[in-house]
Amino acid sequence: MSAGVSEVTSKLAWIAVDWGSSNLRAWAMDDQGKVLASASSQRGMLSLAPAEYEAELQQVIDDWLPSTGQIPVLICGMAGARQGWQEAAYLTTPTRLDQLSRGAVLPPVSDARLKVYLLPGLSQTSSTATHFDVMRGEETQLAGLLADAPGFSGLVCLPGTHAKWARLTDGTVTEFSTYLTGELYQLLAQQSVLKHSVGQDDLQHDACRQAFTDAVTTTYQAPEHFSQRLFGVRAQDLLDNTLPSGSARSAVLAAHLSGMTIGLELADACRDLSRGEAVTLIGNELLSARYALALHTLGIDSHRVDGDTAVLAGLTLAYQHTTL
Amino acid sequence: MSAGVSEVTSKLAWIAVDWGSSNLRAWAMDDQGKVLASASSQRGMLSLAPAEYEAELQQVIDDWLPSTGQIPVLICGMAGARQGWQEAAYLTTPTRLDQLSRGAVLPPVSDARLKVYLLPGLSQTSSTATHFDVMRGEETQLAGLLADAPGFSGLVCLPGTHAKWARLTDGTVTEFSTYLTGELYQLLAQQSVLKHSVGQDDLQHDACRQAFTDAVTTTYQAPEHFSQRLFGVRAQDLLDNTLPSGSARSAVLAAHLSGMTIGLELADACRDLSRGEAVTLIGNELLSARYALALHTLGIDSHRVDGDTAVLAGLTLAYQHTTL
Repeated sequence: MSAGVSEVTSKLAWIAVDWGSSNLRAWAMDDQGKVLASASSQRGMLSLAPAEYEAELQQVIDDWLPSTGQIPVLICGMAGARQGWQEAAYLTTPTRLDQLSRGAVLPPVSDARLKVYLLPGLSQTSSTATHFDVMRGEETQLAGLLADAPGFSGLVCLPGTHAKWARLTDGTVTEFSTYLTGELYQLLAQQSVLKHSVGQDDLQHDACRQAFTDAVTTTYQAPEHFSQRLFGVRAQDLLDNTLPSGSARSAVLAAHLSGMTIGLELADACRDLSRGEAVTLIGNELLSARYALALHTLGIDSHRVDGDTAVLAGLTLAYQHTTL
Repeated sequence: MSAGVSEVTSKLAWIAVDWGSSNLRAWAMDDQGKVLASASSQRGMLSLAPAEYEAELQQVIDDWLPSTGQIPVLICGMAGARQGWQEAAYLTTPTRLDQLSRGAVLPPVSDARLKVYLLPGLSQTSSTATHFDVMRGEETQLAGLLADAPGFSGLVCLPGTHAKWARLTDGTVTEFSTYLTGELYQLLAQQSVLKHSVGQDDLQHDACRQAFTDAVTTTYQAPEHFSQRLFGVRAQDLLDNTLPSGSARSAVLAAHLSGMTIGLELADACRDLSRGEAVTLIGNELLSARYALALHTLGIDSHRVDGDTAVLAGLTLAYQHTTL
């Protein structure tokens, strides 16, 4: 834009950023909460030293910035971790999700046009909950549920490498739990003895779908068999003549393993669900569909909120509650 | 031995071999079942092609062999797997342990002084048992229990990377289960997010011992919490001020993780144990002591049989039942 000021720059009110372990995504926002532009980078907490964050942010948002004035930049995620840009200490549960901005820290920046807010994560300790737990980034997606329903109550699941389940009561997180589900699946499928048997599943195919839902049900009903059933995947591959061969075989066994790991999660996460209570899933379409199928198998309804929509709504809520 | 024939050679009646995935161990035996000599090699199924087995065996036992006559060599373990020297097909449960030699295969050898027997493993399928399973090598250790008690009955555990539990009734394996316990622990401790928190435990230390037994108990009682409790190890490291610091901290968390994985195994393996029934542990001293502590925590008695003693006794039993 050599001639004049771009439309983004002229309308820019603030910038929303989701900065995780491995990437950052930024949105240019107007004062009505509309997205003017978006940009991203593949550098996250794992590849950045504290002193590198400002330059990295500049590179992504520079085109949007006016020559004068000051733009608030609200950032959620691992950028606020101890190993990130600067630590935004965890808020402890119970936490009102419209109050996340109260825990924000403002790292010093050299560009006077920026005012950066790093939002906090949530923690719970054994003094107020049944177990220790932490989240950083997901709390902002949870806050996004309040955009349309300020008094949101319900059980929310964010599937992923470390799946999070949170109990929300009237806009407050009262308790949450993290499950190693995604990481457990990856380790078992790619690095254990099961790697010889497990391929890529496709839940659109009947055989995979059946193996997945059977494994969800049996693991949900009898989680104590989990470790034995893991080896059973390998033994079944060696001995079961009723399975298809080739990649169809490894696909069915992958679906079986996926159903087992998700079933183990649900055995814990859904144990206190009220009869008829639905689960809100926040996440991408494919993984959410897998969880919705698992829940449906257990007779539990669910509905999905898109992960990007949620994080942007949560950052917007934090912006609205920030004293600038 | 350039002058004359060694004492081993003169007394040699047969050779016992335990040939696994990563090594082979051989014992020169006299006709009274006494060990005359032992030798080993670090080459197992994972590093040998079928055509290489005989030469590798020769290298280990050559000093013992007489210049004439024929020496039986009884081999258990992965050398008899499909990917080994030659496949000795699984015997299916229920299997009498004094009949393992009936399933042996004799691979062709070029040295006329050798007569090689590859012993079979055991399998069970869903037609005769609750689940598919396989073992190869452990059945010979189980057979070793019959040396002193031909009608042995009881529940037997062989701890390890893939822990095996077998129900023996009057010298017959009626059912068995494999647990991924050791591999699961290694993957989680070394390759998951928990690697930042988990070090090396020492159950001689009170804090480790307490963390271990607590985790065994809680996981045994509520295996459905397993996946959530895994992440809890990381969260506890981040948040729990009551833990010691440094290597003492990572030792306690390692003991906790070990107790969780073993507790999950015991939640399944010990569910049908009769009141007052003891478990027989076959294995090395350290790992068996860990399992004995876990069982004791749950009020279950155990006694140990040394793993090497068991495999040698099992091979001896197979030798005695072999039609040479």
